[in-house]
Amino acid sequence: MRVLGIDPGLRNMGWGVIAVDGSRLRHVANGVIQTAEGDLGARLSQLYRGLCAVIAAHAPDAAAVEQTFVNKDAVGTLKLGQARGIALLAPAEAGLTIGEYAPNAVKKTVVGVGHAGKEQVQHMVRVQLPGVVFDSADAADALAIAICHARHLQGRSLRIVERSA
Amino acid sequence: MRVLGIDPGLRNMGWGVIAVDGSRLRHVANGVIQTAEGDLGARLSQLYRGLCAVIAAHAPDAAAVEQTFVNKDAVGTLKLGQARGIALLAPAEAGLTIGEYAPNAVKKTVVGVGHAGKEQVQHMVRVQLPGVVFDSADAADALAIAICHARHLQGRSLRIVERSA
Repeated sequence: MRVLGIDPGLRNMGWGVIAVDGSRLRHVANGVIQTAEGDLGARLSQLYRGLCAVIAAHAPDAAAVEQTFVNKDAVGTLKLGQARGIALLAPAEAGLTIGEYAPNAVKKTVVGVGHAGKEQVQHMVRVQLPGVVFDSADAADALAIAICHARHLQGRSLRIVERSA
Repeated sequence: MRVLGIDPGLRNMGWGVIAVDGSRLRHVANGVIQTAEGDLGARLSQLYRGLCAVIAAHAPDAAAVEQTFVNKDAVGTLKLGQARGIALLAPAEAGLTIGEYAPNAVKKTVVGVGHAGKEQVQHMVRVQLPGVVFDSADAADALAIAICHARHLQGRSLRIVERSA
């Protein structure tokens, strides 16, 4: 199965697709959809079409979106919310189930500790996805979110196997 | 020409369509798209499909969305932002230009003062759209936003006429 991870942002929407084969993970593709300052409707439209194109090209079976850190800046939170609405809509319209994870949960799953730095996360993404090259830091974050979701799905199926054994 | 007004909300997305004929306005339709608690992606999908259906049914030429009041609650702001992203995406995908107005600007245009109460706004919407019946308070707000945008478009064309005279 394939998992799409999305790191939402109005200016930079990071995305990453990985393949899950038993306990192994494999990198499929990653990138970032960028929008320039200007008409907000047009920017959201670009993000939506970009994500729909990613889904059409890489056919993920599940998606995961970062549960955005709510900072003290209300204007920034509103902007992020608008981008996050699009990040959730695109996979929902494609019929995918969507996992949501807080940044600390992603770090805990990928690195082992909730307060890992960016470089530590990127290092562990490289370890778990041999040969991966990131398009950008936002794309690396998106891959970490996809890994987090894959590990949670694996954990769930392991528990199901244990129960039925 | 027809103008679609949208009052964004995750639980209640108010909408209203009016027709502009010279300086006269006419009510076309109004309503509210409601979503119940549950999966966020599915709720955003319902809002998006609802708005797309409204646009298909009433063929507006322009749209206007309330520039949401950012309150002190960051979680609420994020939720509102997600719904607002959808409120902007649907008309943008339909190729409509989108006006954005702060609540006070809407009140100032529709009632004459920026700090008018809800009942005063609803009264003036009834005066300017004879025979209108509101589906809900959110639908009434959406009609007020549509009226605000229509008045601004009329003012702009008046200024163009003056300049060319």
